Amino acid sequence: MADPYIKDYLMTAGPTPLPPRVSQVMAEPMVYHRAPAFVDIYARALERLRIPFQTANDVLAFASSGSGAMESAVANLVRPGEPALVASCGKFGERWAELCEAYGAELHHYEAEWGTKVDPAEVERRLAESGATVLFTTLSETSTGVVNDVAALTEAAHAHGALIAVDAVSALGAVPVRQDEIGVDVVVAGSQKALMSPPGLGFASVGEAALAYAEESPGRRYYFDWGRTAKGQRKDPPDSPFTPAVGLFLALDVALGMIEEEGLEQVFERHRLLGRATREAVKALELELFGPEDENANVVTAIKVPDGVEGARVPKVMRDKYGITIAGGQSSLKGKIVRIAHCGYFGAFDIVTTIAALEMTLRELGADIELGAGVAAAQRVFLEAGVAAATPA
Amino acid sequence: MADPYIKDYLMTAGPTPLPPRVSQVMAEPMVYHRAPAFVDIYARALERLRIPFQTANDVLAFASSGSGAMESAVANLVRPGEPALVASCGKFGERWAELCEAYGAELHHYEAEWGTKVDPAEVERRLAESGATVLFTTLSETSTGVVNDVAALTEAAHAHGALIAVDAVSALGAVPVRQDEIGVDVVVAGSQKALMSPPGLGFASVGEAALAYAEESPGRRYYFDWGRTAKGQRKDPPDSPFTPAVGLFLALDVALGMIEEEGLEQVFERHRLLGRATREAVKALELELFGPEDENANVVTAIKVPDGVEGARVPKVMRDKYGITIAGGQSSLKGKIVRIAHCGYFGAFDIVTTIAALEMTLRELGADIELGAGVAAAQRVFLEAGVAAATPA
Repeated sequence: MADPYIKDYLMTAGPTPLPPRVSQVMAEPMVYHRAPAFVDIYARALERLRIPFQTANDVLAFASSGSGAMESAVANLVRPGEPALVASCGKFGERWAELCEAYGAELHHYEAEWGTKVDPAEVERRLAESGATVLFTTLSETSTGVVNDVAALTEAAHAHGALIAVDAVSALGAVPVRQDEIGVDVVVAGSQKALMSPPGLGFASVGEAALAYAEESPGRRYYFDWGRTAKGQRKDPPDSPFTPAVGLFLALDVALGMIEEEGLEQVFERHRLLGRATREAVKALELELFGPEDENANVVTAIKVPDGVEGARVPKVMRDKYGITIAGGQSSLKGKIVRIAHCGYFGAFDIVTTIAALEMTLRELGADIELGAGVAAAQRVFLEAGVAAATPA
Repeated sequence: MADPYIKDYLMTAGPTPLPPRVSQVMAEPMVYHRAPAFVDIYARALERLRIPFQTANDVLAFASSGSGAMESAVANLVRPGEPALVASCGKFGERWAELCEAYGAELHHYEAEWGTKVDPAEVERRLAESGATVLFTTLSETSTGVVNDVAALTEAAHAHGALIAVDAVSALGAVPVRQDEIGVDVVVAGSQKALMSPPGLGFASVGEAALAYAEESPGRRYYFDWGRTAKGQRKDPPDSPFTPAVGLFLALDVALGMIEEEGLEQVFERHRLLGRATREAVKALELELFGPEDENANVVTAIKVPDGVEGARVPKVMRDKYGITIAGGQSSLKGKIVRIAHCGYFGAFDIVTTIAALEMTLRELGADIELGAGVAAAQRVFLEAGVAAATPA
């Protein structure tokens, strides 16, 4: 029989699909990183990075994964032997704890249950108890789909005189970070999620208080030293202390130009629609969302695998048979959930396609699923909103 | 008048020009880093990386610049308060010293004069004097074109029971590193020079002794921790602890395939020809090479700017008028030398073109230069060698 599933769809929370013009620019000939042809683009991309961070800070850029940007926060803010508080609710939050230990902090780790949000009141208690001067936490926890209330967490940190560093790797450009409005001291992110760019760039948007705190205790870092990169980027024209990942910057600049063109509020609105459509589809299929239903959880939708279905087979059948790559659960959630990402270059019919394939897959694996029911629920969300708002630029 | 200089030529030591098929592969759609479509290429690229390193080691790969790979060596090998020896002869060697200081080493720094080689006998004396357990040095010093005798330096280090870590960022794939034959403990490199790939990947080929030494003293590092990356890469299939720079790996795999196809010895022979042709052209123009004439200095050729010519204008006219990007001198050599790179995807007519433009530029800036004399000398080198050997695959 002919195979009608010849196309591939990438529905993971990083790397995410690239818009064709982002891909294409990387096929351009290489340029010297100190030639005007690159320097102009580098300067523009750095300027444009402020848009998704919603900040006037210099956004520091590193050739690294998002974890490298997280490491920059720990390397610059942790002082050996001094207390630091990590507030986590999933796998990526735990990375903060591992980093703090590697850098010799007196680690205090508040582990909220996976699938729940970090509780600001508990954070307050832990800050008071530990005397931590820095709080590390997560905006969108990619392993569970949970989006934390960073405004409340920032208030908690500042009430105790602590700085707050937020991992927004999967959130940036999908949900509002409002760094300057909220007063978040440090926001770190990566290129390969909602920023619609290839993996390989890490970012740290660092406020003056955090920069000053880091400068008070130099050493123990070099590549990820904020001061070194800030000094380079503040030159006119800006200069990177190390060879920048030229091709990735060309891609980032095009992608950020698309976000600017679509308009940041429209980008957020599109993600809200994609998230809502996915959640409505899940509910219409009488499947269970993992974690509380949350109108802000618009980065990744985590779905409990129904009883009687072997969880690990769902992403496998989705990919091998239907060409659609979604993610399963990580660590303790292995085989228990699947995760559909919608952060970045995603539109309405990516959700329709993925839900349709999920329906077919679950049915094939023995679940009692009504074909088309999830799709119809998603369609209704898009129709009610009007199609234009759900279409990326 | 019509401008006949409408084409651009990149003649810098990183980023270097990309072969068209390396550029093209980055325009392919993004893939998930845990999907078989990527994992197979990741595994193959890691395997192929052993070729230019001339090693059986696992070559550890980081999403970072080459400086990140250097930092990995310092973060894993330096123990706070313990002596480390840096033997430098230029700007990139000095980076080792800055890194060692950032990581709290008791730094001993032997600074050979810029334009000379590090002297193995002096290294021996410094090792004996300092009791350093690690020697950090450079294979090809990009700021001056000097290529050090790593075999002799390795012998010196091992005679004193020290490990040796070598920066081969600009050398790897241009001149033989012979890591296993010589017994170099650690070789670090980057993607963007002779490996004909875009910037953004750093590599560390780490022998068992160095890995074991690093493991004895864990902590103070995370992203660049060798043990963490080695553990991931040694899985079957290999897995990166952090999101790998997917597109850059696709490019690297194609580029390494080209090196495999051309044959490593042929690649080295091509670089020998390019280096020799450039040096012969310089001599025919009665210009002076910076540093000793060295048949191994086949990565970058540094040329003294002749008296009466304003040095900073040479690269400027070369680029702005003729479209050819070469590098000037750095730090104390600013305005005193120019540097023509020939490491990576370079062929005979890149040298011919660059020498022709250099002749025209120097003449324009007032030097007494015989047009075509340098070109003819380069032509003779290529003709004597036979054209085939000088053509990249």
